[in-house]
Amino acid sequence: MRIHDLPTPCLVVDGPTFEANVATMSAHRPGRALRPHVKAFKATALARQLHTAGHDAFCCATPAEVVGMAAVGLGADLLLANEVLDVRRLHTMVASSLGSRITVAVDSVDSIAAASSAGVQEVLIDVEVGLPRCGCPVDDAGRLADEARAVGLEVRGVMGYEGHLMMETDDKAARVEAAMAGLLAAHAAVGGDVVSGGGTGTWDTNTWVTELQAGSYTLMDADYARLDSPFRPALDLLATVISVNRAKGWAVVDAGLKALATDHGPPTIDGATVWFCSDEHTTFAPADGGELPAVGDRITLRPGHVDPTVALHDRLHVLHGEEVVDTWDVDLRGWDVRRV
Amino acid sequence: MRIHDLPTPCLVVDGPTFEANVATMSAHRPGRALRPHVKAFKATALARQLHTAGHDAFCCATPAEVVGMAAVGLGADLLLANEVLDVRRLHTMVASSLGSRITVAVDSVDSIAAASSAGVQEVLIDVEVGLPRCGCPVDDAGRLADEARAVGLEVRGVMGYEGHLMMETDDKAARVEAAMAGLLAAHAAVGGDVVSGGGTGTWDTNTWVTELQAGSYTLMDADYARLDSPFRPALDLLATVISVNRAKGWAVVDAGLKALATDHGPPTIDGATVWFCSDEHTTFAPADGGELPAVGDRITLRPGHVDPTVALHDRLHVLHGEEVVDTWDVDLRGWDVRRV
Repeated sequence: MRIHDLPTPCLVVDGPTFEANVATMSAHRPGRALRPHVKAFKATALARQLHTAGHDAFCCATPAEVVGMAAVGLGADLLLANEVLDVRRLHTMVASSLGSRITVAVDSVDSIAAASSAGVQEVLIDVEVGLPRCGCPVDDAGRLADEARAVGLEVRGVMGYEGHLMMETDDKAARVEAAMAGLLAAHAAVGGDVVSGGGTGTWDTNTWVTELQAGSYTLMDADYARLDSPFRPALDLLATVISVNRAKGWAVVDAGLKALATDHGPPTIDGATVWFCSDEHTTFAPADGGELPAVGDRITLRPGHVDPTVALHDRLHVLHGEEVVDTWDVDLRGWDVRRV
Repeated sequence: MRIHDLPTPCLVVDGPTFEANVATMSAHRPGRALRPHVKAFKATALARQLHTAGHDAFCCATPAEVVGMAAVGLGADLLLANEVLDVRRLHTMVASSLGSRITVAVDSVDSIAAASSAGVQEVLIDVEVGLPRCGCPVDDAGRLADEARAVGLEVRGVMGYEGHLMMETDDKAARVEAAMAGLLAAHAAVGGDVVSGGGTGTWDTNTWVTELQAGSYTLMDADYARLDSPFRPALDLLATVISVNRAKGWAVVDAGLKALATDHGPPTIDGATVWFCSDEHTTFAPADGGELPAVGDRITLRPGHVDPTVALHDRLHVLHGEEVVDTWDVDLRGWDVRRV
């Protein structure tokens, strides 16, 4: 199959770029020094490529992602790096993943109680390191670890995500060091052998974690690419020009808000200016007096934010040049946790 | 089942508000004077409610929506109000929907050729009336109708969507009239008995179309609600508070960019200020010194834009008070057209 055979809109991955991104990260953080985050791509077939590259521990954002990874035999060490209060879902996750090792992030007595009642055996204490999101205060980490152990949970260590520093360019190393000083202080109080954190934006500056929670580097956000980074965008949205207004100088493709996320801004099109996206359309005009395309032409749009864009699609088509060499199901979508 | 039994994140519809929206529109534009647009809700179960309210003609944005509507017996008069160049998909759509009446929008010789080769029998000439998107120039409409008839297509009339005027508040009636003057000029050249256009934002100002293409009024965008309109938002995202930072004054729920669209801005939470959404989280703080919620509390977020939000979910739960009285599958998602 070739690119021209693909119905549009659909997502395409540039195979060589993806492979180069994986190789670069795996050389820098081999094996368990990296815990790839599956929320970035939601496809067990892509995760399997990372497994082949030497990584057998993964991060998940939802119980559904954990169950899906366990179901395909990628459950050697799965971290649910998120607080979940739904005991039924946690219980189904545990019961569906026997034989897998599952660790869950906790940051309160409530999340500890939920994990414990659901039959979770291992946890990490999630620590707030500056990003206004989940995580307990540094000073509470030791007490929470004691509470977790008191109800029979094994505490493997700590996690803390410095998400507010991913796109930082000023004084980045020092700011990451300061954030991680908090995490290390929490770790001293908690114990265990895991210090988990970081991401694609701090892949080379965060030298304190024992495992880096990066996922975006695989398909690479166009937005992240503003950083001085060896990772290159590998994901595009293939679309067909369905209407051209020659009198007024614009063209329209069959892909819009339902096919790509715009929370990092509108998509980009080489040689064109994007005017706006609506549900099933994007309107654009050639830049600098270039030529309008013809109706039926195929073009690619580059979405600004990979993670929520992938979550809109059923599959990813992998290209080597114009040839479709593989198709990966986006099989970790949604929140339903079904016993498997 | 009651609201507290629903796993989160999930979409909930306030039943009485939805019913009032439907009744208001059906009273103003009964029967075929309204052609509800299914792209707004992508659920045949919701479409069936509109059928019960007297509407048996519908708009679709994709061949997949047409096939899904035909498959459940709602195919009396389906308009694919969008240009489609993919002959294979159009052909599968036609072949899967025998017994249904299908009309397709065309705005170029290429879209006419695609419809004709796929076995489509009826078309509307799509006319640009000011929105920079699909549609031929007014002056080309008659010539395109002749070309369509020359290849054996029945031309039922014209459509033109004045989407740029939906949120207009200054001089709206006059601007809608001017846009529709173009559509009526095109209609005079084209012939046929259909003049299709308009939407929720021009439901009472567009008195020129024979059928109004409105869909958003059913669940109603929070954004549209800025207009002076009798339609009220009926869609919320139910979420669970999973983390509270009392020291710094914020809380986090288990719903973010993968559960709601932010192209019309971040969601709103009653009594709170939303800080930001990330993939699976939204961080917020109480407004005006209010109290933080507790971990495990359930709250609702109101998404700014209904259409792309619904497209992120598998189902819509209908509430009367706290009781879940119905669950509608969002069965028209995606772009795959399978022969049924």
